[in-house]
Amino acid sequence: MKLRLAVLILLNLVWSGCGQPPAVETSDPKIKQISTFDVALDESAQRELESRFDQVLNPQNLNDWMKHMSSKPHHVGSPWSKQNAEFIAKHFKEWGFETEIETFDVMVPFPEIRKLELVAPNKVSFQLKEPELKEDVTSGITQDLLPGYNAFSADGNVTAELVFVNYGIPADYEELERLGIDVKGKIILAKYGGSWRGIKPKVAYEHGAIGCIIFSDPKDDGYVRGDVYPKGPFRMEHGIQRGSVLDMPMYPGDPLTPGYGAKEDVERLSVAEAPTIMKIPVMPISYGDALPLLKALGGPVAPASWRGGLPVTYHIGPGPAKVNLHLEFDWSLRRAYNPVAKLRGSVYPDEWIMRGNHHDGWAQGAADPISGMVSLMEEARAIGELVKTGWRPKRTLVYAGWDAEEPALLGSSEWVEYHRDEIRRKMVTYINTDGTGVGFLGVGGSHSLEKFVNEVASEVIDPVQDVTLQDRIRARLRVSGDKDAEREDLRIYPLGSGSDYTAFIHHAGIPALNIGFGGESSGGSYHSIFDSYDHYTRFSDGDFKYGTTLAKVNGRLVLRLSETDILPYRFVNMAENIGTFIESNKKLAEGVAKKTEQRNKLLDQKAYTIARNPKKTYLPPKRLDEVPDFDFSPLEGAHKRLEASAWKYEKALAGLQKGSLSAEQKSRVNQLLREVEQAMTRDDGLPRRDWFKNMIYAPGFYTGYGVKTLPGIREGLEERKWDEVHLYIGEVAKALDRASAKINGAAKILEKK
Amino acid sequence: MKLRLAVLILLNLVWSGCGQPPAVETSDPKIKQISTFDVALDESAQRELESRFDQVLNPQNLNDWMKHMSSKPHHVGSPWSKQNAEFIAKHFKEWGFETEIETFDVMVPFPEIRKLELVAPNKVSFQLKEPELKEDVTSGITQDLLPGYNAFSADGNVTAELVFVNYGIPADYEELERLGIDVKGKIILAKYGGSWRGIKPKVAYEHGAIGCIIFSDPKDDGYVRGDVYPKGPFRMEHGIQRGSVLDMPMYPGDPLTPGYGAKEDVERLSVAEAPTIMKIPVMPISYGDALPLLKALGGPVAPASWRGGLPVTYHIGPGPAKVNLHLEFDWSLRRAYNPVAKLRGSVYPDEWIMRGNHHDGWAQGAADPISGMVSLMEEARAIGELVKTGWRPKRTLVYAGWDAEEPALLGSSEWVEYHRDEIRRKMVTYINTDGTGVGFLGVGGSHSLEKFVNEVASEVIDPVQDVTLQDRIRARLRVSGDKDAEREDLRIYPLGSGSDYTAFIHHAGIPALNIGFGGESSGGSYHSIFDSYDHYTRFSDGDFKYGTTLAKVNGRLVLRLSETDILPYRFVNMAENIGTFIESNKKLAEGVAKKTEQRNKLLDQKAYTIARNPKKTYLPPKRLDEVPDFDFSPLEGAHKRLEASAWKYEKALAGLQKGSLSAEQKSRVNQLLREVEQAMTRDDGLPRRDWFKNMIYAPGFYTGYGVKTLPGIREGLEERKWDEVHLYIGEVAKALDRASAKINGAAKILEKK
Repeated sequence: MKLRLAVLILLNLVWSGCGQPPAVETSDPKIKQISTFDVALDESAQRELESRFDQVLNPQNLNDWMKHMSSKPHHVGSPWSKQNAEFIAKHFKEWGFETEIETFDVMVPFPEIRKLELVAPNKVSFQLKEPELKEDVTSGITQDLLPGYNAFSADGNVTAELVFVNYGIPADYEELERLGIDVKGKIILAKYGGSWRGIKPKVAYEHGAIGCIIFSDPKDDGYVRGDVYPKGPFRMEHGIQRGSVLDMPMYPGDPLTPGYGAKEDVERLSVAEAPTIMKIPVMPISYGDALPLLKALGGPVAPASWRGGLPVTYHIGPGPAKVNLHLEFDWSLRRAYNPVAKLRGSVYPDEWIMRGNHHDGWAQGAADPISGMVSLMEEARAIGELVKTGWRPKRTLVYAGWDAEEPALLGSSEWVEYHRDEIRRKMVTYINTDGTGVGFLGVGGSHSLEKFVNEVASEVIDPVQDVTLQDRIRARLRVSGDKDAEREDLRIYPLGSGSDYTAFIHHAGIPALNIGFGGESSGGSYHSIFDSYDHYTRFSDGDFKYGTTLAKVNGRLVLRLSETDILPYRFVNMAENIGTFIESNKKLAEGVAKKTEQRNKLLDQKAYTIARNPKKTYLPPKRLDEVPDFDFSPLEGAHKRLEASAWKYEKALAGLQKGSLSAEQKSRVNQLLREVEQAMTRDDGLPRRDWFKNMIYAPGFYTGYGVKTLPGIREGLEERKWDEVHLYIGEVAKALDRASAKINGAAKILEKK
Repeated sequence: MKLRLAVLILLNLVWSGCGQPPAVETSDPKIKQISTFDVALDESAQRELESRFDQVLNPQNLNDWMKHMSSKPHHVGSPWSKQNAEFIAKHFKEWGFETEIETFDVMVPFPEIRKLELVAPNKVSFQLKEPELKEDVTSGITQDLLPGYNAFSADGNVTAELVFVNYGIPADYEELERLGIDVKGKIILAKYGGSWRGIKPKVAYEHGAIGCIIFSDPKDDGYVRGDVYPKGPFRMEHGIQRGSVLDMPMYPGDPLTPGYGAKEDVERLSVAEAPTIMKIPVMPISYGDALPLLKALGGPVAPASWRGGLPVTYHIGPGPAKVNLHLEFDWSLRRAYNPVAKLRGSVYPDEWIMRGNHHDGWAQGAADPISGMVSLMEEARAIGELVKTGWRPKRTLVYAGWDAEEPALLGSSEWVEYHRDEIRRKMVTYINTDGTGVGFLGVGGSHSLEKFVNEVASEVIDPVQDVTLQDRIRARLRVSGDKDAEREDLRIYPLGSGSDYTAFIHHAGIPALNIGFGGESSGGSYHSIFDSYDHYTRFSDGDFKYGTTLAKVNGRLVLRLSETDILPYRFVNMAENIGTFIESNKKLAEGVAKKTEQRNKLLDQKAYTIARNPKKTYLPPKRLDEVPDFDFSPLEGAHKRLEASAWKYEKALAGLQKGSLSAEQKSRVNQLLREVEQAMTRDDGLPRRDWFKNMIYAPGFYTGYGVKTLPGIREGLEERKWDEVHLYIGEVAKALDRASAKINGAAKILEKK
């Protein structure tokens, strides 16, 4: 389900950088931020280990496994998904891992009736299916194939006038209001993009719409972007983007078992009770099918920025286009199969380093998720080969293949919910992968791991260009004039949602990373039947060089996390990143106040009325309520203390003699370090969604995948809930102080040596 | 030929505003900038005169004249153009003006052979014509109709591979070079837009192309913008934009008689010698005809910003598309008919206030130019009505209808060249109109007239909204957040080219204005057969309210210019505007230096090479030569002196007793005031184009219509000709000092009273 890396890169979230940590008063220029090797690892032994790991890696395995695993549709509940889970588990076992397949019984609706008809002004029926292509050997498969649908749409049979709503995000409804158009009782037609898809029906429903059709517009996802399949990699006329519309920003995972594991015997909400299931029918269609709908729309011409790439003047409606949308689903529980493999740690068996990638796909799912899954498997195999030579990891390594990620991150979320207490005690880091391509390393995650990831990225060599992965990204930042191009450590992006790290970082407070390659493998196979082995090998990482390089990156991360005496969390970068989040929230607060003042002044001046085109309806926007002053100083104070603790820890680390810590001291230090991320969670979580407990990051309630930093504050500002802003300024400050206490505690232990 | 007002507004050139003149040390807060009425006009008499003028205006006349004059094609050389000239002249005479039709014999080629064929990879022939529509009564006319062609294309019969070059402006060729694509020996396919059309074949030829096809892309000019004709006003599938491609930025007017009037008996260059005639064949086509060409192109996918609105992936080529383009023209002289009407001034007969609008159109030309022409005629008629009551203007009023504007501003340019000495002695102001629509008043021109125009715009009421024209523009500036929204006088835009003011302001140094309405009448009839009475009355100023309001605006300008004791030139705004031009040139110089440094550093770092996608050709850009330091201080000093003189004049004016000047003093003051614009010209003109003599404004050598302020400096920076930058910093400084001397001279005369 992951957001395509290409998209992340477009959104400029990947390693977007922001300058050296500024020389705050608490920093000490005499303190060199040392590397993991300087204090916590035996460098030569570790490098020898990693070199042996690298030598084992074989791209051919990735190729063979992808070909096998993507040869049939393998969504949760399908025979091939179970087969793939068993295939993965079998291999994990072969490679020396203690492996079991842990199952959960989760609600995933499958479509039974799927009808769309244009009933006025002319009758048009739609095929709603993708064609078989001779260039794509798996495209003809129909057995066990889920057709184009949105999981967790409501059942419904609705007929109403159509309204085109651009991306269907809140800002679009503000524009519709100015245009004098109401979607109440209408069916909306929204383009994919602008937010995660589940936002569209949610916001449509909030505005009174009774149905929702989502289409892939060729401007965002089709011939405007490049040659379409099979000539090129982009979405062809009839390609359909499947996908979930469960209200995951409220809580992901099984809608019937919020906060606890969906084991066979637990109590469940009814479908009607589940708050995350959409209340109106929703269906995705291709741009081929969207064209007659757009042609049939009247009403005003859509604003310039709403217009897409179809050869028609985009109108908004409502009507005269009128459609019937009839959707019914089989609301059965499906069994999700999570193969989970463990390699018990020889020194710290109760400290877990976890790797995960989902194995279910919407159809053949070669890129998403198999490309990441086969990289994970090869990484696990190579570790197994090390084990065969007698080596054992110091910490316990856990490798998982998640099922049911696509419909709602079900496999991983239920697993985290079920094992939450143990995870919070034992898990050091969760490293996620998902579909991966070619180009640039993209890393998101907990900023306490930023320096550590940079250490690895500055060592691993790009498989095509003869430079390190870090240098390659840096070159791109330089060319694009990014202000952070010369920052010593490249920035990692903060995590929203869209893949299986979600429950770990946002619900359990486990430091997490999400890693993959992208930027040079853009295309439009996402969630269609054309996400196939043929497509992937022609247009993405056909020789699996980047997939193998991804194994090198993750292998190093895992092996160093496993072997290090002191866990590689570092807090100077973390504090600096959090400082940028505070700054951007302050700027947002100023922006909201300024916008409010400006708009109300323009209303006083009647400027909207005087300037408007008398031939068109374009109403003045609503008057805005006044914005109070927000006192960010408690948060800024806490941030200063966080910075101070981060530098204190750096100083203590720099002054440490290698090997001088007792086992008990190491254990106490590592325990404190591991608790920093959890210290930044809050049991009561975020407003209206207490499942999300991390105070630093969350997926946006109205963006879906897109991250919100300091979400309690930011969304309070965006949604003009001033009480929440006041409250969460305090809550984030407390979270930072809790983190500072842990860091100071760890520093104190080191200082005593 | 004028640039559509809608486009100007998009380019944000119209009244774009920039804050009150800043409180420079030379300004005096005690000096109130008084109005014309305070010192130079008898307010009650003038208002009574203007009120009588207004009462005469009748929209029905505009309607009737437009219907008549746009009933047949009326390009220069056509029978209906001559008829229209005679029709205008007849009316001028009726209204009491001494009228003659002054003729010039100018080179305007008409097409004889016009063939385009796709010869590979498949054969496609093109119709190259617009269809008759039942909704448009003049669309079926074929007699005397010029088909879609570009005037001053070369003759030629060329066959070559096609290359899509985006807009075909210099920046696009830099991108092509990075993509490893050379247009040498190729035929280029360019979209309309991004520059004036004549730039495209000129730059193509400079890069070795042998032919040029220009098409209207639906993204810029077609269904992406709105409903197409006849459903809506926008360009339909087969609409063709005719237009000139003469190298007018070198010199407009007759290519065979540069700098002198094209009278019957003068010596002429041969066509081969004329430097402004294109050297390669050029032809415009519709987007309907462009589609098969784009479909047939291979090679890399065009950069995202190059892609248009046709339902195809835009590729660059070269080939496999190969086209044959065969164009031949009848290179005869055509007789241009300029009706010129005079109303001799009763007090200052040798001070001329001139109004002009062209009367020739590319086809039926209802909006362009008849909408402006009929407004001018009604204005002249209303003045004639005043004359009938015994009133006489103090100054001489001159009303002209220009012929042959479309092919190259021929009628007006030859007239100015022929009468140049007399004009420079006698002409006070030239006020131009051209096609006009509905919405917002747009004014460009000499900034010495900015305050004067604002006086009028703050009095005339918008015909639809119950506010002044100025308030309406101000409301729009407020809504768009323009930083100049609260500036007391709204900014007028500096003039580039595109209509008949060109020879006046740029060649003869006559203060000029260009005025029209727009912003709410966008469409796509420009230079097609659908620029018709039917189109105009359905989609633009159908009730001619704005055309009548335009007459009110221009009538006031003319009547006040005629009657005032002291001419209404004011220099504080002028100096402030010139200050912004100096600032933007300094910023440009800094930008050029910074870009140079950044690019060369990136080349040193090999960043372009490391960051590039290995699967695509994208070469590093060229290393740039170092940018010297430029010393703007002479110019800044001259500007300070100009500001001081402007305030000195304001102070003198504010201290003046009404009626205290002798006739001789008035005459000397007015003479000096009139000379300010000419003082800012330079006989040797601009680099490589000495016809353009104004040091403050010029059309861009590589933009065509788009203005360049302080062009000698700006284009030196843009084209990296450092010697020119140094030279023109000095030349502009001298020009400003010459202006200051005139202003100081006028102030001194006033101070003595």
